[in-house]
Order: sequence, then structure tokens, then C-alpha cells
Amino acid sequence: MSELAARAEKLDAGDELAGVRGKFVLDTVSDHAADAAGVYLDGNSLGALPAAVPGRVEDVVRRQWGELRIRSWDESGWWTAPERIGDRIAPLVGAAAGQIVVGDSTSVNVFKALVGAVRLSGPGRDEIVVDATTFPTDGYIAESAARLTGCTLRPVTPAEVPGVLGGRTAAVLLNHVDYRTGRLHDLPSLTAAVHAAGAVAVWDLCHSAGALPVGLDEHGVDLAVGCTYKYLNGGPGAPAYLYVRREVQDRFDSPLPGWNSHAEPFGMRAAYEPAAGALRGRVGTPDILSMLALEAALDVWDGVSIEAVRAKSLALTDFFLECVAAYAPAGRVESVTPEAHAERGSQVALRCDDAGDVMKELIARGVVGDFRHPDVLRFGFTPLYVGFGDVERAARVLGETLRVRAGNG
Amino acid sequence: MSELAARAEKLDAGDELAGVRGKFVLDTVSDHAADAAGVYLDGNSLGALPAAVPGRVEDVVRRQWGELRIRSWDESGWWTAPERIGDRIAPLVGAAAGQIVVGDSTSVNVFKALVGAVRLSGPGRDEIVVDATTFPTDGYIAESAARLTGCTLRPVTPAEVPGVLGGRTAAVLLNHVDYRTGRLHDLPSLTAAVHAAGAVAVWDLCHSAGALPVGLDEHGVDLAVGCTYKYLNGGPGAPAYLYVRREVQDRFDSPLPGWNSHAEPFGMRAAYEPAAGALRGRVGTPDILSMLALEAALDVWDGVSIEAVRAKSLALTDFFLECVAAYAPAGRVESVTPEAHAERGSQVALRCDDAGDVMKELIARGVVGDFRHPDVLRFGFTPLYVGFGDVERAARVLGETLRVRAGNG
Repeated sequence: MSELAARAEKLDAGDELAGVRGKFVLDTVSDHAADAAGVYLDGNSLGALPAAVPGRVEDVVRRQWGELRIRSWDESGWWTAPERIGDRIAPLVGAAAGQIVVGDSTSVNVFKALVGAVRLSGPGRDEIVVDATTFPTDGYIAESAARLTGCTLRPVTPAEVPGVLGGRTAAVLLNHVDYRTGRLHDLPSLTAAVHAAGAVAVWDLCHSAGALPVGLDEHGVDLAVGCTYKYLNGGPGAPAYLYVRREVQDRFDSPLPGWNSHAEPFGMRAAYEPAAGALRGRVGTPDILSMLALEAALDVWDGVSIEAVRAKSLALTDFFLECVAAYAPAGRVESVTPEAHAERGSQVALRCDDAGDVMKELIARGVVGDFRHPDVLRFGFTPLYVGFGDVERAARVLGETLRVRAGNG
Repeated sequence: MSELAARAEKLDAGDELAGVRGKFVLDTVSDHAADAAGVYLDGNSLGALPAAVPGRVEDVVRRQWGELRIRSWDESGWWTAPERIGDRIAPLVGAAAGQIVVGDSTSVNVFKALVGAVRLSGPGRDEIVVDATTFPTDGYIAESAARLTGCTLRPVTPAEVPGVLGGRTAAVLLNHVDYRTGRLHDLPSLTAAVHAAGAVAVWDLCHSAGALPVGLDEHGVDLAVGCTYKYLNGGPGAPAYLYVRREVQDRFDSPLPGWNSHAEPFGMRAAYEPAAGALRGRVGTPDILSMLALEAALDVWDGVSIEAVRAKSLALTDFFLECVAAYAPAGRVESVTPEAHAERGSQVALRCDDAGDVMKELIARGVVGDFRHPDVLRFGFTPLYVGFGDVERAARVLGETLRVRAGNG
């Protein structure tokens, strides 16, 4: 056993989250070649299946829908699922209850949040600042929100944000963790800068929620959105969520005022009157199957602290970088993920000229990460089910793959 | 056996759709008192569970998500589900393939369609006409669309629509079937009137799709939306759909241009460029569990023509009205659903002073319809699984309930 493999064994033995892995459905060794037993490092794209989900979904389909049918809207708690599940997510992102509703896609929630943010901002403010390096959908939706609210869109790098804020700034949309590089942006200081300029701060938490502490309440974030199918393991296309800070809820004015956000949804009134609280972030009928699968998926967090997750996440990515340095041919890959812990999310992105082909080979050998155009190998580390042995094995397989491709295998 | 019960038996024996009932999970007699074995007349709110769904959902959860995980986006056809399932719905609403995408809620799709419609309309047009009697969410969303596009909202009754159309009319949003009264509006002539005024026609098909022929292509409808959890039996909160007529697809300009609607979604480009065709109606990551449950649910339509469904639907509602007239105390209930077939959807709404309490008693006796504020008993007839025996039994139980409440039982 190599020194790194021995270290991995020791780290796994001391891992306080090791027991959580059993709450997920993961590959067994026999699924793949023995030297690379299923290492899933793509949980930042689609989280693995929590073991409690299939049974719960079956109950929702067969009993709640099949037998109770329409009665389930009350009796099975369907109607209140968006806010109930929002309250389950709340502690993971540092929010008190009553500020998050689940539903719709991330893109749709970005739209609600940005138009809502512009309307929350003061008069004379007509500029939306957006992270130019963000996941594209945020930029596209921001452009639409700007167009529909008569604002100008100003795309800048996150580092440039403080310098462009001013009296015209209505809202600022930022990603907490960059989807490509894994860079963690400084939410507290950027939020403070946005507020100092009198603008409204909107954060996209897709790549941070469930991987590290966010502290929405503590840092005074106004609005936030996030998906639930990455580190929250809610399933493919599981509904996203919207956080509306308690202090701005009364003034939050959604551009998608569907009947589910009405103060009296079954009053069937011609005039719209928004519900109190976070509920005004709801829109139409919630997609119950996807939503209740997510609810079951959140059970894996029982007894897990996000601080413990963060500590393990940093240990995993540190160890991966160390193993890659040891196993990969010198200069063959280069990390574009920041070294500093304060600037690192829960992924490692390696620049590699032939990244597309390399990732195909890794996947064929059971090490699943993903390729991001044009030259990035992306590896996500979900501390709930990834162990240090996985990390060592993934780096080793990567090293072997790179050597073989270079003819040195 | 009463004359009506005998008639029901004969009608059921001659029902060419009788065999489709077996494709659904429905109550057995033992679930309820024998005189009222589970009659589900609320399929216009939540369709019953198609028997093929539970197994399909289990496969999606356990194998596609649990084992294949991220690979399922390609290998299990997740990525193309919105347009593939749209093409399954297309023949039911009279649309050729390539014009419908599934995803998001009805409310969100109304928003896409209405803002898109205003943008399709000519210059100088700044008024959105909306059915004032519509399901409230359409009115709320129309108000938001008007506000964001600088239009005025003009709510009128459907009968008034032709009279208010003019050079200022940008778009007209109408419901095909009124959710409360069950009135079927004249889609061909209203669409023609909208076009004659140079405006864009948007139809909400929630209460007609799957119950009667719609003829979107034939009648030149520009944009349409609908839900899939009523007569299409897709499950609670199953994703809605958007129809964008082929001729206007190139100019359709969505207010929700998420990355799924990009010409090259995985190019991760900073600049938005819409996909060709109906795909530009997509937004964010599709909710796969709900969506693939819907896909399985659509299997019940194999070999079923919408014309046969319509014929049976009218026979069912005719027979129900006849049975109610025979069984209910005179003057105790009054149908607000039009007599004329050309004006009737697939439901019967009965005005009844104590409708809320009456419906509670009906449900307790296994006859499930719903109550619509303030005084409407609403019964939906899904021809795929409701038979004439059900209809006779429901009317009989209603008659008995009304007599008991009047002290004549």
C-alpha cells in the first residue's frame, strides 16, 4: 500500500461523517474494475440517490396519488410542501424558518429574485450588476430581467463588483461558488459592499448550499436562489428554492404572481393579493413527485452539521490536490481552483489540454467527474458520501490515465 | 334495477373505451359502501393514477438516478424529455410534432406565452385582453405580463372579446373551458376574431386537453398552454406545456431564456442565442421525476382517439344531467353548465346553496367531485376511466344526499 493510500485509510477511519455514506445508494466494488470501484465525483452536478427516496416516492405514487388522489393535497401535506421543505433547507444555508419556498427551476427563481430585487431598490436605480463569469443561465435571465424592468445589465467579474457599485445600482446577482473553477466568493464582504451602495444583493447558491456554511441571515443577504439536485441530492431536476429575507418580504413583489402565492388561493378572487411571508415566492401548482423525493432526500442531514461537512470538504479537496501532485505527470494538469481555503468551494477543477478525452477514460474506469468546455476536468466532493479512499483512488486512476495517454503507462 | 341503472349497464356494454379503464388504478367496491363504490369525478382536478406509472417511476429512481446517475441525462433520454413528451401530447391537441415543450407550471407558461405574444404583436399594440372569468392565475399572470411589457390589461367576459378587439390589442388570453361552469368557448371563431384584429391568440387548455379535440394547428392558434395533471393524468403538479405555432417560432422571444433554451446549452456561452423551434420555450433543468411519470401516464392514449373520447364525454355528461334531473329533488340543484354540446366541456357544475356541505357528504360516500366557492358542485368526467354506471350511481347518491339533508330521506 502506498503512503497516500495508507493516509487515506487513516483519514477514513477518523471521519465523523463516514456513517452517512450508508444512507446513499452507491456502487459496489464489483460494478467496476477492482482498482477503481465506483468513485462518484459528480455530486456537484447530480447528487447520488439517498436510500430513503425510492420507498418514499413509491408511497407518494401508489398511496398518496393512487388511493387518496385529490385528498392528498390536504391529507398528505402536498399543499404546504413548498414552505415545509423550504424550512428543511433553511438551516443548511443559515436561514431561520419562514424565509424559503421550494418550487420551479433555478432559472425561474433567478427571474423572480432579480425582478423582485429591482422593485425593492430605491428610485433612480436602473442597473443590474451580474457576474460575467457566472453559470450562463443567470446571465441570460438577468438580461431578460433588465430588459423587462427598464434596467441596464452590467456584467463584470466578481473582483470588479465593488468598483462598479453606485447610486444607479439596483441589484447585484452573484454566484457563491463558480461552477467552473470552484472559486468561493466572499459573500459577507460582497453583500456588505452591495448594501453600502444602497443596492439589493441576490446570491445564487447552487454550488455552495449543502457543501459549506452560507450564513444568509447572518450576512444580511436580501434574496437567494439555489438548486437542490447537487449537494442536496434531491434528484434530477428537483425543484429549486427562493430565499426572501424576512425584512423585505412585505415589499417583495414577484413578477410571477401565480395563484399559489395569493393570500387566499382557494378564494378564486379576480384581484391579486399576495400572501404574507415567503409564500409569495410560490407560483403555480408544485410538482409533487419531484418535491417529495427531495423531502425524503433531506433526511440524510439529520444530525449532520454543515460545519462538519465544510471541514471534511476542505480535507477532501486538500488531499485530492496532494494526491494529484503525487500521481499525475508533472505539468500535465494544473488546478484552477484556489489554494486558499477561504476561496475554495467543494470541487477541484483541473485544466488539462485533452480534458474531454481524459474524462471519458476516467468514466470508463469508474471515476465519474465531468468535463467543462473547453479544457476543464471537474471533480465535485460531496462530504456526505465521498471518502478519502475514493479521493486517493480517483487521483491514482487519473495519474495512470494521463501516463498511458502520454505513452508512459 | 331502475330504468336508469339498466340504461347505464347497456351504455357501458357498448362503450368502445371501456377497456381503457383497466389501465388505471381505481377503487375496488370494497373500499366504500357497496351502493357507492368509488366514483371518481375529480379527474378535472387530479387525474387518477395510470397503472403503468409506479413501475416506471421506480425504474427512473432506482436505475436511472440511482445507478446511471449523471449518465442518464444522455443514456436515459432525460435531456430531450421536454420536447419528446411534448410530441406525445401534440396529437391530443391537434398539433403536429415540434411545437410543444413540457416543463414548468401552467402559470409560468402563461407568463412565457403572454410576454411572447406581446413581443410577436405589431408596433403600437399595447393592450392585453384577458377573460375576466378565467381561472385566477391567468388573470394575475396577465397583469404581471402587462405591467412588465408596458401594456394595459383589459379583463372582459369571453362574449365581450370580439367587441373590444382593435388596433391596440396585442394579445388575447382565453380559457378553452371555464374551470367553474364547464363552458366550452368557441376557439375557432374567437381565434379568427383575434387574428382579424391583427392580434396574437393565446389559449389555456387546462380544462380541455385530453377531454375534447382542440385543433391548435387547424384553427391557427398562435400560442397555447395547459396542465397535464387533469385529463392527461400526469400526476400531482406534473409539468405543464407550451405550444408555439411553427410559423411564429423564429420570432418567439421568451421572457425566461434559461440555458435549456440556448442553441448550444453546453457551450456555456456568455451571450444568449435561442434554440430553433419549440425548444426555445424551455427554461431550466427539467424536473425529471414528475416529467417521466407524465410520460408513462401518456401510454394510456395508445390507440385512443380524442374524437372517441369527446363522444363518450358528451354521452356521460348528458346522462349525468338526465340522472340528476330524475334523482334530485326538483329545484334543489341547477346546472350552470351549458346544455348545448358545442358549449360544454367534460364537466358538469351544479349550483347548490349548501354545496360545500353536500360535497363533503358525497365524498364520505365515495362520490368524489369538488366544491368551488361559493356554491358550485363540480363533477369532472374523464372518459378514459369513468363509466355510465359510475354516472348513474353518482347522481343517485347525490339525490339521496339532498333528500336526507332536506329531511325527506
